[in-house]
Amino acid sequence: MSDLKRRILEMAKKDLEDIEAALKEHVHPELKIVSDIAGHILFAGGKRLRPLLGILSARICDFDQDFDRAFSTVFEYLHAATLLHDDLVDGADLRRGKTVAHSIWGNSEAVLVGDFLLARSLSIAAKTRNCDVIALVAEVTQAMAQGEIHQLSKIKSLDISEEEYMQIIRRKTAVVFRGACRMSALIAGVGEEKKKAVSDFGHHLGIAFQMADDLLDYTCDAQSLGKNPGADLAEGKLTLPVIHALKSAPQPQRAAIEKIIMQDVFSNDEFEALTDLLRRFNGIQHTRQMAERHVAQAKEALSVFQESSTKTLFLMIADYVLDRNA
Amino acid sequence: MSDLKRRILEMAKKDLEDIEAALKEHVHPELKIVSDIAGHILFAGGKRLRPLLGILSARICDFDQDFDRAFSTVFEYLHAATLLHDDLVDGADLRRGKTVAHSIWGNSEAVLVGDFLLARSLSIAAKTRNCDVIALVAEVTQAMAQGEIHQLSKIKSLDISEEEYMQIIRRKTAVVFRGACRMSALIAGVGEEKKKAVSDFGHHLGIAFQMADDLLDYTCDAQSLGKNPGADLAEGKLTLPVIHALKSAPQPQRAAIEKIIMQDVFSNDEFEALTDLLRRFNGIQHTRQMAERHVAQAKEALSVFQESSTKTLFLMIADYVLDRNA
Repeated sequence: MSDLKRRILEMAKKDLEDIEAALKEHVHPELKIVSDIAGHILFAGGKRLRPLLGILSARICDFDQDFDRAFSTVFEYLHAATLLHDDLVDGADLRRGKTVAHSIWGNSEAVLVGDFLLARSLSIAAKTRNCDVIALVAEVTQAMAQGEIHQLSKIKSLDISEEEYMQIIRRKTAVVFRGACRMSALIAGVGEEKKKAVSDFGHHLGIAFQMADDLLDYTCDAQSLGKNPGADLAEGKLTLPVIHALKSAPQPQRAAIEKIIMQDVFSNDEFEALTDLLRRFNGIQHTRQMAERHVAQAKEALSVFQESSTKTLFLMIADYVLDRNA
Repeated sequence: MSDLKRRILEMAKKDLEDIEAALKEHVHPELKIVSDIAGHILFAGGKRLRPLLGILSARICDFDQDFDRAFSTVFEYLHAATLLHDDLVDGADLRRGKTVAHSIWGNSEAVLVGDFLLARSLSIAAKTRNCDVIALVAEVTQAMAQGEIHQLSKIKSLDISEEEYMQIIRRKTAVVFRGACRMSALIAGVGEEKKKAVSDFGHHLGIAFQMADDLLDYTCDAQSLGKNPGADLAEGKLTLPVIHALKSAPQPQRAAIEKIIMQDVFSNDEFEALTDLLRRFNGIQHTRQMAERHVAQAKEALSVFQESSTKTLFLMIADYVLDRNA
């Protein structure tokens, strides 16, 4: 564990404990199988970034005392719902080192428990009795589904542009981070400036988070990753490291990259040859630079807030997104 | 087409046209594939009972002029979302005589467009800016997912009780009909008595509707049904006609019923032998009687409202549920 991560976990210890308790308390399954599947996906070592951002956003907007911890679960339940559906869509085997739910309980069960968690998320949002909050959660859900569909429609599409990649990750990831931050600002009832500040923080953090995630697929070992490296590629997902390298490489090397990409299976040697090409044609570095840029923008967005331990923690979390190795 | 159905279609002509227009107008897909799949499931000859109940409920609560037709789409989008997911869960081939979406576009696409429609439904509910409405829609979504999971957990379970069957159909069907009616009463802001009246109407109508649906699987021909008769059984779903016959039949005939049920495939002769047994041991008649009882209760619920053409239409719809042949 990095030193930064250790310090974040220390500072956020009490909040993270509250989050675990809230996630257990508010899921309310009526059937054992729902409890089992929801528990499998919810309590598998998630980082709880989304609920933590929610709690910290309430706090930085000076709305801590009254912030109901139940509300921090909204985007984690939503996240868990999409993980259940995405693993199915991607045909994944492992998630955080554990067998995926649909392989244990069946595809149908995974779809339906995903639906349940999605509805649960909206039920809890409804408890805020704040229409803006509810509209936000519904819009986030809608955007996510469309982001995933967009991604799916671009499987193995060599012509995917960086712009399309940005659209996809904005919808499938950044809107959720943005939503988790914005929801708390709406509940706190702060003015436009602060609402925009935490929303922008969430947006840029989400973009950077997804880019870092996409990088890890090429730079991380299986054990830290909890799934096989190259998993994105095996699923036909072309992410920024590949998209950029394809654009930068001259014809012979571009063809070499394309050849490996279009294979349904590839050997370790082929995967290594590919990552070498991604490095050589700047795909890895460009992605890292873009992620750094968004982290900087996330931090910049917080400038409207005075210095505080909460703001410090926000800034540390922004750095952590680039620092993490899983 | 029955005479009753013809008269209903005549009386509801304008409303049904409004509903079609609203369904087209408010779906808002951002991607062509979402539009294609959503269109395939939405515009395939659905009866529009749920949105019609919504409009009529607003009208019987004296809230017609201002009722935004967009709100009538909420439970139809939700219904379409669950059809997409259920067809996948059930491994169905046909829906209303058309190839199911997941066979045309793929399982992943069907899951994700289902998620989109589910979120769309909640987004539109959020536009009412009425927290009770939004909470209702979220709760209905949650109940439906759990109803489907419950049903799935009882596939080929010979020990399923009539009580469990009632629990399943309440969650998976009746809550939606109840929701469509109740939502309008909430928007109209009527008192408890009328709110309860339309909610009870929807509940009992939904129960009767599902029982009639379960009956059709044993009594209807393939062409009217738009799918193969015995489809429920082929999917391992034990519905009231079977549950009741299993309880009533003496051991040798019970064993004969069980044998056919537990087969993965069955011949036409076997299916006919089964329906004979269901008749002989009162499964068909009992289900019909139960459905009739719930239709009577639905009608009874409306007694708080004065006579009007809207109320007449409500009563006709209640009768139609038993009258329909598809």
